[in-house]
Amino acid sequence: MGRTTDDLLRLAAEVSATQPGRELDMLLTAGERISMALLCMALADLGVPAASFTGSQAGIITDEVHTRAKILEVRADRLRAALDEGQVPVIAGFQGVSTARDVTTLGRGGSDTTAVALAAALGARVCEIYTDVSGVFSADPRVVPSSRRIDRLSFEEMLEIAAGGSKVLALRSVEFARNHKVPLHVRSSFTWEPGTWVVEEDPSMEQAIVSAVTSDVSEAKVTVAGVPDRPGVAASLFRALADRAVNVDMIVQNVSKAGTTDVSFTVPKLDLSTSLEVAHDLAEQIGAGEVSADDSIARVSLVGAGMKTHPGVTATMFEVLAGKGINIEMISTSAIRISCVIRDELVDQAVQALHEAFRLGG
Amino acid sequence: MGRTTDDLLRLAAEVSATQPGRELDMLLTAGERISMALLCMALADLGVPAASFTGSQAGIITDEVHTRAKILEVRADRLRAALDEGQVPVIAGFQGVSTARDVTTLGRGGSDTTAVALAAALGARVCEIYTDVSGVFSADPRVVPSSRRIDRLSFEEMLEIAAGGSKVLALRSVEFARNHKVPLHVRSSFTWEPGTWVVEEDPSMEQAIVSAVTSDVSEAKVTVAGVPDRPGVAASLFRALADRAVNVDMIVQNVSKAGTTDVSFTVPKLDLSTSLEVAHDLAEQIGAGEVSADDSIARVSLVGAGMKTHPGVTATMFEVLAGKGINIEMISTSAIRISCVIRDELVDQAVQALHEAFRLGG
Repeated sequence: MGRTTDDLLRLAAEVSATQPGRELDMLLTAGERISMALLCMALADLGVPAASFTGSQAGIITDEVHTRAKILEVRADRLRAALDEGQVPVIAGFQGVSTARDVTTLGRGGSDTTAVALAAALGARVCEIYTDVSGVFSADPRVVPSSRRIDRLSFEEMLEIAAGGSKVLALRSVEFARNHKVPLHVRSSFTWEPGTWVVEEDPSMEQAIVSAVTSDVSEAKVTVAGVPDRPGVAASLFRALADRAVNVDMIVQNVSKAGTTDVSFTVPKLDLSTSLEVAHDLAEQIGAGEVSADDSIARVSLVGAGMKTHPGVTATMFEVLAGKGINIEMISTSAIRISCVIRDELVDQAVQALHEAFRLGG
Repeated sequence: MGRTTDDLLRLAAEVSATQPGRELDMLLTAGERISMALLCMALADLGVPAASFTGSQAGIITDEVHTRAKILEVRADRLRAALDEGQVPVIAGFQGVSTARDVTTLGRGGSDTTAVALAAALGARVCEIYTDVSGVFSADPRVVPSSRRIDRLSFEEMLEIAAGGSKVLALRSVEFARNHKVPLHVRSSFTWEPGTWVVEEDPSMEQAIVSAVTSDVSEAKVTVAGVPDRPGVAASLFRALADRAVNVDMIVQNVSKAGTTDVSFTVPKLDLSTSLEVAHDLAEQIGAGEVSADDSIARVSLVGAGMKTHPGVTATMFEVLAGKGINIEMISTSAIRISCVIRDELVDQAVQALHEAFRLGG
């Protein structure tokens, strides 16, 4: 059924240039409706009593922001009743009902988030996420054949891994799981072997210095040159970007020379044209210089909860990259992550070298 | 979008032999959801503020009989609010929400019935039904080119015309309109010319003796020979058929000979195998003779409110058919209808002859 959403969007584009969010949500929820009804029929065929529930029927109450609603509350009494009757509830992911009683969709990462929200509402011991890989790996196995499945991660590490470009779990669902302390078990749809557990950090457990290397080529870099070095100027740029709902990731500001500075930031490639528009407008207003874009960048990150107490990681990372002749263009760090922006054609080489240097292999 | 329902049913057949009604309804309502969202988008493109409503959102409350639910009540407050705001509500036909809060479909004729139920609930002056013909005709225009569009019909006439085989309006929606006194206007989707009004009978208006000739080849005849001529024997046959949800239309019982009688009845061809099964079982129990079936029959009917006061119609009908050498196999009458069962290959000839004899043409 994977193609349904694209088919529906194509139909919408055929009949209409203006696609009101309310109607787009009504349209897009048809796909999961079809899938879950068919799944329940297949379960019935196997003698398993199952019942499908729309987001609305499952009590998933959202705000009124169509196509990217946020879950406000889960009123799970109908699901509890179904479970008490011995039924297997099959719930439409990615959708809910707004406080105005309209159908909403949750946008990107919405299906994983639905699962975690239901696990939290039902007080489940664990939320199992079945996927096409057997867990979270120390690096992308297609890039690093020796990469190893990680048995256990803290929520914070998983957040950084998701933010760093891993596609296994949506960032949003990990945030929800952390906020509601729902243990996640990421595992394969095709085998019964245990996968990766994502749990609250246990102070007694020994923390890997580095758990994983991640990479991401979905971002582009924008540079505004000659920005007047006055308080509030940079803020006005990022406020304007936020107002257009652009998610800025990394920001670097060069040292000031002659009263001006260069500001570089990364944004999703999808938001590049909006970002350039905003940057050009602002550059004109504030009398800044040239605005330039670079969409051939990659971000490579090291994530590990033990990094906090081992200050040498950054230095080792820089040495490893330098040893391969890879130039570092931007740097950003958190307590448990270091990210470097490099040329995108060098990203696999960087991931392989870092994975080997930090001995992450099996 | 007309093919969607068939596509969904094919998918269901692929994944499952048991198709629980609750899940089938969840599945089938996806089609109208898609259509109405696309329609609202197209309207938005034209600058018309429109909002789609599922059966549940429109307050169409049904019983719990999945795949053929009956409307119990319409709670139209959301629609009234949308209308008050100047929006055009686009409502999913054919569906509702049961008293157990499950999604239901209304089965055959459900879309027209939804329209009439909403018109009744909102106190509409008229319910306009847009279709691919310009109204109700004195006979099927493909069979009788001189047939005439009827300007005005009583609910009772329209009921008989729908029951007689006309596909323009579902019988069920006409019953609903009659019970709630909702005037119907059946008209073309492609032109603005007035169509056929279906209204309460006005005693002052002159009634056409015959309004329309209809025909129907969707039924088959079953005959049980040598039925013991005792009270209650025929009743037990029709009770058994009713228990299997077979809609028996016409019934004829021959004069008794030597303590037994032959019983013939017509049923929808779709129900023929069930009917034969029931008839065989019962024939064995009561010691009746042979059971036979005939699926090459047609029913031709004359409908007209004025017929009540003009007793010669039946005689004329028989003469016209006899004049064409058409044998009448069964007869059934109501106050405003006469139906004859004839060979199916003669049905067009019969319709043409009757249409001409009663001067129904334009």
